[in-house]
Amino acid sequence: MPEIAVAAPTFVEKLEASRAASRVLAAATTEQKNRALHAIGAAILRNADRVLPANELDLANARENGMSEGMQDRLRLDYRRLEALEAAVLQIASLDDPIGETIRGNQLPNGLRISQVRVPFGVVGAIYEARPNVTIDIAALALKSGNAVVLRGGSAAENTNRVLVELLQFALEEEGLPPEAIQTIDEFGRDGAKDLMQARGYVDVLIPRGSAELINTVVTESKVPVIETGAGVVHVYLDESADEAAAVEIVHNSKVQRPSVCNALETLLVHEAVAAQLLPPVIRRLRESGVVIHGDERTRAIVADVVPATEEDWSTEYMSLDLAVRVVAGLDEAMDHIHRYSTHHTESIITNDLARAERFLAEVDSAVVMVNASTRFTDGGEFGFGAEVGISTQKLHARGPMGLPELTSTKWVVRGSGQVRG
Amino acid sequence: MPEIAVAAPTFVEKLEASRAASRVLAAATTEQKNRALHAIGAAILRNADRVLPANELDLANARENGMSEGMQDRLRLDYRRLEALEAAVLQIASLDDPIGETIRGNQLPNGLRISQVRVPFGVVGAIYEARPNVTIDIAALALKSGNAVVLRGGSAAENTNRVLVELLQFALEEEGLPPEAIQTIDEFGRDGAKDLMQARGYVDVLIPRGSAELINTVVTESKVPVIETGAGVVHVYLDESADEAAAVEIVHNSKVQRPSVCNALETLLVHEAVAAQLLPPVIRRLRESGVVIHGDERTRAIVADVVPATEEDWSTEYMSLDLAVRVVAGLDEAMDHIHRYSTHHTESIITNDLARAERFLAEVDSAVVMVNASTRFTDGGEFGFGAEVGISTQKLHARGPMGLPELTSTKWVVRGSGQVRG
Repeated sequence: MPEIAVAAPTFVEKLEASRAASRVLAAATTEQKNRALHAIGAAILRNADRVLPANELDLANARENGMSEGMQDRLRLDYRRLEALEAAVLQIASLDDPIGETIRGNQLPNGLRISQVRVPFGVVGAIYEARPNVTIDIAALALKSGNAVVLRGGSAAENTNRVLVELLQFALEEEGLPPEAIQTIDEFGRDGAKDLMQARGYVDVLIPRGSAELINTVVTESKVPVIETGAGVVHVYLDESADEAAAVEIVHNSKVQRPSVCNALETLLVHEAVAAQLLPPVIRRLRESGVVIHGDERTRAIVADVVPATEEDWSTEYMSLDLAVRVVAGLDEAMDHIHRYSTHHTESIITNDLARAERFLAEVDSAVVMVNASTRFTDGGEFGFGAEVGISTQKLHARGPMGLPELTSTKWVVRGSGQVRG
Repeated sequence: MPEIAVAAPTFVEKLEASRAASRVLAAATTEQKNRALHAIGAAILRNADRVLPANELDLANARENGMSEGMQDRLRLDYRRLEALEAAVLQIASLDDPIGETIRGNQLPNGLRISQVRVPFGVVGAIYEARPNVTIDIAALALKSGNAVVLRGGSAAENTNRVLVELLQFALEEEGLPPEAIQTIDEFGRDGAKDLMQARGYVDVLIPRGSAELINTVVTESKVPVIETGAGVVHVYLDESADEAAAVEIVHNSKVQRPSVCNALETLLVHEAVAAQLLPPVIRRLRESGVVIHGDERTRAIVADVVPATEEDWSTEYMSLDLAVRVVAGLDEAMDHIHRYSTHHTESIITNDLARAERFLAEVDSAVVMVNASTRFTDGGEFGFGAEVGISTQKLHARGPMGLPELTSTKWVVRGSGQVRG
């Protein structure tokens, strides 16, 4: 007699389980969801002895496969990072539940009362690269916003993610919520990601997070509605009136504090009237941290040993210790440059001039526009969202860091007493 | 010497002109936009002697090509309908300007002040069928929300739309706004619609409005973000406690008042305990208006001369004087049926039972859920939006009737005093 094998669930079976779980989650109380989040927070640290060795294994494979230092840094977990993940989950638990909020409403002349209320999407899909913290962040945000989530992480983090999803599911089950509310489809490999993009009717929204190539593939191939997250060719503009100390520190922080992420500075624009004064100290400070400057001709006339910038530099997201620098005639030329080359993620002006600050904020059409602040602040955690699903660079539905409200839809509730249309 | 021909603008030139115009419109004041809307309202009636003959020509061609009565009705304009269009435009002028509204904001612990403000999309594309009123509605809503719009109407309305777009552009120009803010690409035919779907970077959002086939083509082929509008397999459920008079009038109004539109009733569900009492008067009233009933076995056991319903009937959007009718065991079976067959546009429960009303409103996952009201109220005009861009049946960005706020995006404004990230 042959052995009876228990078949692993198919792709479609998994998505059907997600949809069923999403209905339970949509009806879950805030208290239930918060209890599950606290259970997840506790489970992250309690299971450090399972998570960290799995992560070590992924890292060892990554090194063997020649993964870059920057990518290894994103893949790496340690106890301190697990503590940060726990803190993010607990902060998400402490935030207001967006579900059930009435956004607007009124009574119509015919007596109908209409109101628009916030509801979960249902099933959220996420395709991302080898960053295991994204697994926890997206799962926690989806749970709090009443959504089931289907995760496809980078294969280089598969061992780490398998352990993380197991502990997430265990925590859900402990609190009486369906474990299928958080699922990975990593076992289906590349085909799983492709199938997820075709899963209209199963998945309500798909969020790609990672390299420009990954995002572009999802945006152009997906039949499921997508929220594009973002590549960041991020600009800082040093206005004529910029404070020198602020310019030096903000440019340095924007470029150097974590160069491998999307809100890091890539192109510095400087007003020609102050270029000779500001560029030397700004570039000196950058070079102390190992930044390589790619400058236009006018920059090279002011500072020595600058790599000549090519046309390609202006649209490059280096994600490394490289910076493009250009001298411009003023605010208009700076905004023209941004309009032409930016990915509309984040741009910051350093100025003491009120009118120019307001013009920059009004006219630059990017997800986040700043005055006198480091571009590194474009971040869900920094904005007080607990974590982020990603940073949307599209205009539909969500723009900028995506937290809880960005994972919701709405529905209209109409209460009548027999009204018909005349 | 050869004659110098002024070449008509190419497709890309038109889109570039739209984008340039969108920047002007984004910066236009509410007063400017309202003045242009008043100019448009006046122009519609003043040009009736040009619009109506063009529409007559389209209608004559349509009759020759065998267009259905229902489609001809949507294509037809007359003076009364022009007056209604003028009224819609003036109502849009009277509504609050969504642009510049601060949606949320706060001061972060580090002193950064962040706020999320409403901004226009930029360029909105619309692909729709031969309904010239849509040209005016979408153009007016786009103008008030600071967006440029690129219109591709049904070719059967091309003569009407050409005159309408001319008068819209003339009104913009009169008020000092760029006429390219409202453009048609009808002259590029089917290729124009296809190219519009590929125009990432030129068009920020694309809204298809029309048949299920049209919408499906745009949703699956577009590389530009799409808002899906809707096919409506719309349900009314008559609960055990339904008031008989309300049931008769709401079902009749939902089905008969305008059967060719997406919020018209397509499937009636009736609680088995009251089917024998309610179905005869409900169906009698429907038949007085010529409605053909397609019923399940239990319906046919109660009422004579009912066409047997097939499995296909439950998922059919008739858009005609046909109605599917099914007897169910109660609220749960009714919601299961809706869950399975609905396009999640609009569903209404007729009941006097508070608990069942609340369950229906909470658990039915559709864009609009109603109690004791005609499904015909799912409409931007009825909701007080002045007009509508369409009725979104997707969950991303907009759901239900789309008015001014649904044509906007947001951006984050961050005001600092030198903050850097630690």
